[in-house]
Amino acid sequence: MAIYLDHAASTPLLPEVLEAYAEALRTIGNPSSIHGHGQRAKQALEESRERLAAVVGCEPVEVIFTSGGTESINSAIKGLFWAARAADPVRSSVVIPGGEHHATADTVDWLVRAEGARRVEVPLDADGRILPDRLAAALDSGSGAGSVALTSAIWVNNEVGTIQPVAALAEVAAARSIPLHVDAVAALGHVPVDFARSGASAMSLSAHKIGGPVSIGALVLGRRSSLVPLLHGGGQQRSVRSGTQDVAGAVAFALAAEVATARLDDDVRRMGELRDRLVGGVRAAVDGSVMRGPAPGPERVTSNANITFAGCDGDSLLFALDMAGISVSTGSACTAGVPEVSHVLLDMGVPEDEARGALRFTLGPSTTQADIDAVLAALPAAVERARAAGHSSREPAMY
Amino acid sequence: MAIYLDHAASTPLLPEVLEAYAEALRTIGNPSSIHGHGQRAKQALEESRERLAAVVGCEPVEVIFTSGGTESINSAIKGLFWAARAADPVRSSVVIPGGEHHATADTVDWLVRAEGARRVEVPLDADGRILPDRLAAALDSGSGAGSVALTSAIWVNNEVGTIQPVAALAEVAAARSIPLHVDAVAALGHVPVDFARSGASAMSLSAHKIGGPVSIGALVLGRRSSLVPLLHGGGQQRSVRSGTQDVAGAVAFALAAEVATARLDDDVRRMGELRDRLVGGVRAAVDGSVMRGPAPGPERVTSNANITFAGCDGDSLLFALDMAGISVSTGSACTAGVPEVSHVLLDMGVPEDEARGALRFTLGPSTTQADIDAVLAALPAAVERARAAGHSSREPAMY
Repeated sequence: MAIYLDHAASTPLLPEVLEAYAEALRTIGNPSSIHGHGQRAKQALEESRERLAAVVGCEPVEVIFTSGGTESINSAIKGLFWAARAADPVRSSVVIPGGEHHATADTVDWLVRAEGARRVEVPLDADGRILPDRLAAALDSGSGAGSVALTSAIWVNNEVGTIQPVAALAEVAAARSIPLHVDAVAALGHVPVDFARSGASAMSLSAHKIGGPVSIGALVLGRRSSLVPLLHGGGQQRSVRSGTQDVAGAVAFALAAEVATARLDDDVRRMGELRDRLVGGVRAAVDGSVMRGPAPGPERVTSNANITFAGCDGDSLLFALDMAGISVSTGSACTAGVPEVSHVLLDMGVPEDEARGALRFTLGPSTTQADIDAVLAALPAAVERARAAGHSSREPAMY
Repeated sequence: MAIYLDHAASTPLLPEVLEAYAEALRTIGNPSSIHGHGQRAKQALEESRERLAAVVGCEPVEVIFTSGGTESINSAIKGLFWAARAADPVRSSVVIPGGEHHATADTVDWLVRAEGARRVEVPLDADGRILPDRLAAALDSGSGAGSVALTSAIWVNNEVGTIQPVAALAEVAAARSIPLHVDAVAALGHVPVDFARSGASAMSLSAHKIGGPVSIGALVLGRRSSLVPLLHGGGQQRSVRSGTQDVAGAVAFALAAEVATARLDDDVRRMGELRDRLVGGVRAAVDGSVMRGPAPGPERVTSNANITFAGCDGDSLLFALDMAGISVSTGSACTAGVPEVSHVLLDMGVPEDEARGALRFTLGPSTTQADIDAVLAALPAAVERARAAGHSSREPAMY
């Protein structure tokens, strides 16, 4: 029986979501069509938009459905950058913290390479925190006031689980009239997410991190914000995102978000107990193990335990656990299978040698105590094996 | 019992595709993860890529899964434009025919507005044909050889069903070393689609036009072609399209494409018989009706009948038929419900007054003779009513 502790990479589809999704997939018609079939599809779509908006604290018109987190983040960052620069050519800097997801960091790097943007980095602290003072300093640095097109920050770090002070960051940005995009992909279902209260200008979401399908996400775009669209065409969704709208996906996403939000407190508490059991058990069983990121408490999601094991490679550990039927990761799944040291840990100042030994355990609502106990039973032998292989054994069997 | 004759806007999900999709949605894990769950997901994904590639005549590595036609087209046109211009700043023209889908035309218009591109148009003939000689003339026009970044053409016109001579167009482009992107969204399932034989550099596909889900499409990108990605991030899919890959969507798309291709000849023949029954019946029953686009035959898909009715608005006719439980359209659903005269008909030289009276009937494999007979029974009264309302009555009830 395989054990899945990689919920940050993707979560199983919730049974009730699958049922509603399969039902909605039987809807015939394009919601942009004005006949009866189209209008019934449109009604299901708009109801889903309203339900999702209610759950994440925004107006329905602010919900732009996309294909997922990567599209949302690319749309927000490129779109806000192009819009700001078009309004004022001086605005060409993009300020982002260290340790951002590749969808953010690589998008900004592309703007630097291809569009002449300047990237300004806000250094993380040792636990992966983004400090509002440091954001303020970065926004005020460089060529002076008025040069920043936008700033973007991850709400919950996807690798080490740090919860960022989004409202304080938004205040810093708003005081300078700079739009803030928030990557809330790893936040939804783990912390209360309220767009209006966050003070952000835009926010990215993904359904498959909360028991919804992989194929849908959303960009929440404040009604006073404007951006240059990434996808042009039929002009759907305020012309921010053209393309046939996915009614069934919207139905599934709205339901998954409702479920995740309704049981948030329970899930957070229960995952916290299991996470503590895991971390305590690892500490007792394995010398030289260190949890990275904030200590358990209000600054860390309860679903995440990122632990470095001295003297071994995370890859080797991952394979040893995999052979025991346990799925964990060394970091983000979004590096397309290329084994590399976590840039998040490096940006937190973890020495490369230690960062190489990182394993990320991420729990979900379906995780059981038996799962945790199985990991604790398998881990000592896995660590021993990985330590015997040593740092030099970097030949992932499957690549 | 509602009758659906708007298959060009979207098709019902095939029952066998829904079944396979629902099964694949139970797959747990991100195909970029290197553990067992991830590898099983990856295997299902790559098998689907191979199956789709086999059906559309390309290599698996050339299949880039996207969220649908609009994303594929935007990626191809913007990406090829940016790549060509980066290689040679002189290459800043984009050559496209009239009558293209908004996803193409609006993308090119954005390149003109925002990126300094020049749009060169190839005029359609009166039946919506793209003539290779005219493409050649357009490619050779303007600031002379070497100024064209790319050209793009729709394989089957989505409004009037004209089948374009793609291989001849590709030859014209290839002789000038100019990449040709083909929008095959309305072609798949209606004509044999073979990427390698087409000679195109890139090709866009969408699943929901052939009985698959709305949320997935593909960009087929020739392995010798390179483009600048629209979505940056984890580097999935040759780094052409970052973002978590949709395993279940890929499974569903591959199956839908296999089914559509396997029964293509039968479907084409059967839809042709029904289309002829529809067109003949309309001609006999309604004075002043004219089918637009090529006459039935090898230059027109059998699923499309675009008919203008003199002296009335297509919108009024659409509403009158809708009240009889029949869903048709006045043109593309991708103008987000905004009533406007078809730019395709205008680009074909149809006078605006006549173009206003257009109705597009598009058949699918599930269309029956009873559906056609119901339309023929309802149409005379609908036309009478619409003609009584006259051209001036442009108040679509639902807007």
